[in-house]
Amino acid sequence: MRTIEWKTGIVKTIDQTKLPRQTVFLELKNCNEVAEAIKNMRMRGAPLLGAAAAYGLALTAYHSTARDKEKLMEELTISAETLKKTRPTAVNLFWAIDRVMNKAEKTNENTESIVKTIIEEAQKIADEDVEMNLRMGEHGSTLIDDGDTVLTHCNAGALATVDYGTALGVIRAARKNGKRIEVIATETRPLLQGARLTAYELFRDGFPITLITDSMAGYIMSKGLINKVVVGADRIVKDAVVNKIGTFTLAVLAHEHKIPFYVAAPTSTFDINRLAKDVIVEERSMEEVVKFAGIQVAPQGVTASNPAFDLTPMKYVTAIICEAGVFSPTELHKSSRFRD
Amino acid sequence: MRTIEWKTGIVKTIDQTKLPRQTVFLELKNCNEVAEAIKNMRMRGAPLLGAAAAYGLALTAYHSTARDKEKLMEELTISAETLKKTRPTAVNLFWAIDRVMNKAEKTNENTESIVKTIIEEAQKIADEDVEMNLRMGEHGSTLIDDGDTVLTHCNAGALATVDYGTALGVIRAARKNGKRIEVIATETRPLLQGARLTAYELFRDGFPITLITDSMAGYIMSKGLINKVVVGADRIVKDAVVNKIGTFTLAVLAHEHKIPFYVAAPTSTFDINRLAKDVIVEERSMEEVVKFAGIQVAPQGVTASNPAFDLTPMKYVTAIICEAGVFSPTELHKSSRFRD
Repeated sequence: MRTIEWKTGIVKTIDQTKLPRQTVFLELKNCNEVAEAIKNMRMRGAPLLGAAAAYGLALTAYHSTARDKEKLMEELTISAETLKKTRPTAVNLFWAIDRVMNKAEKTNENTESIVKTIIEEAQKIADEDVEMNLRMGEHGSTLIDDGDTVLTHCNAGALATVDYGTALGVIRAARKNGKRIEVIATETRPLLQGARLTAYELFRDGFPITLITDSMAGYIMSKGLINKVVVGADRIVKDAVVNKIGTFTLAVLAHEHKIPFYVAAPTSTFDINRLAKDVIVEERSMEEVVKFAGIQVAPQGVTASNPAFDLTPMKYVTAIICEAGVFSPTELHKSSRFRD
Repeated sequence: MRTIEWKTGIVKTIDQTKLPRQTVFLELKNCNEVAEAIKNMRMRGAPLLGAAAAYGLALTAYHSTARDKEKLMEELTISAETLKKTRPTAVNLFWAIDRVMNKAEKTNENTESIVKTIIEEAQKIADEDVEMNLRMGEHGSTLIDDGDTVLTHCNAGALATVDYGTALGVIRAARKNGKRIEVIATETRPLLQGARLTAYELFRDGFPITLITDSMAGYIMSKGLINKVVVGADRIVKDAVVNKIGTFTLAVLAHEHKIPFYVAAPTSTFDINRLAKDVIVEERSMEEVVKFAGIQVAPQGVTASNPAFDLTPMKYVTAIICEAGVFSPTELHKSSRFRD
């Protein structure tokens, strides 16, 4: 199944905070439930958040009793605001909301038709995400050699998208194209998306995978055990890649060891008229750091820092893989013609 | 109290695997119990392992019923072998065992006198460790400025030594000398010595401390929030510093951000006639990575890697602080006159 699905007035997804121990499906009935699931990371991953936000608006539209466009747009605007407040860093969320809202705004028909248009647009965003990931995978696959060991961080897989994945999509496509690939996954503290989600996806799909703690990446690289690094992105600005905390460290280590460092992300993640300094890095609860798997590990009362993302300057990025092809960081503007 | 103490035929220590949630004291009655405590990391930290190994031999000597030197040395040799098999990387363990065994070998008196000599030598190793840490702290303190924020990794504190600490000894001495210091501690997966032990020691002693996951160090450095890095060492060879996994990553990051990277370790940690390639890096159970506190975090069956240490080439090390002073990595041989 896809990570997120529209079931006539219900959005079905999997609670990613429970994986891999439990497979719990969620049936989200309104936009507030979608917002809660995003905020608490039951759904996460920049491309998935885009689709989720679009479906959130679709739920509002579907269940609306508004008789005219003005009233419907009012309700949609409230939902859009609620969704925009969930997580500040990944840009796909804002991109998808704006896309659906613009589409609705431009539709000059009865409310029934507008509702239909919104649902179709959300579906389209989800379908396009899968399509983009497949195309991205093919482009990225050309950068991977037979026999490579690829390091990846966090989860940029099927679970971070509607299906297939960005960074893991590249790995999947490389295997589909006959290349033998081994994967090393960093566990990705504090929320362990690498251990819980990437290991889960790849192990299930029969990839040779080895899990390491985030602290081991440097040593593993120094031993010559990594050929490529491929990660996803939550936002790509002109001068930096914004991605899960720890990405920057891996980029510096890869640079030091002359290992290619690739970022795989759809153009919906691109925000190349903005700069690193414009990005708000979400600071999450320190509970996530002082606790491990729900158990208090640090002494009670100790302060912790918990930035959810970091910024990797483009000098550390070898290339960016998107659905339009493979771009060097300085050529990124050339990809813009592929955006809507 | 000291982290390890001799109580007439018993070695008293604290079970560090239980901290900070529980304070459990251990009363070790023989060398095998000491070996078990080392192997399972109830005691850890290179300088502490030196003292622990010496006390382990003291227990064998104290409880021996041998009537002649030959028999006693036989028993001690078996104990020495048992202790040497516990953990392969930190050199202090081997250094302390050799020191006690040589002392015993050279004592040509009755067994009672040899036993007394061995116990005294173990005590001396423990006392010297505290003395060395205090001296190291004073030397290291000169490198720290008022207002500095110091990043440290793992636990190189009182709990890693007999008392006071190596890296944390430097931080303690800096404060004693009137400098205001803030500390950022990496949690240090997989066994969380930073979150469990360093945060515990420093929080208890009233230092301003912030805990981060290992993956956050790069971002925190890029924000200009770290002035110095100070870590301990498990072994210092001619061309590299061997220390807890993750140290090398921090050294590369510090180098990239032009942040001084200091290593604090007594000369008993020095093994400068050997090279990085001679060092056996202990590979511990993958259970430590895929599980925490008995809770499986990765999918069942996934493979993990778990090297306990890494090697930081000397090009990343600004200076080494030992009881003899502060040395540049190329001048390390000059410290050798301070060794026994």
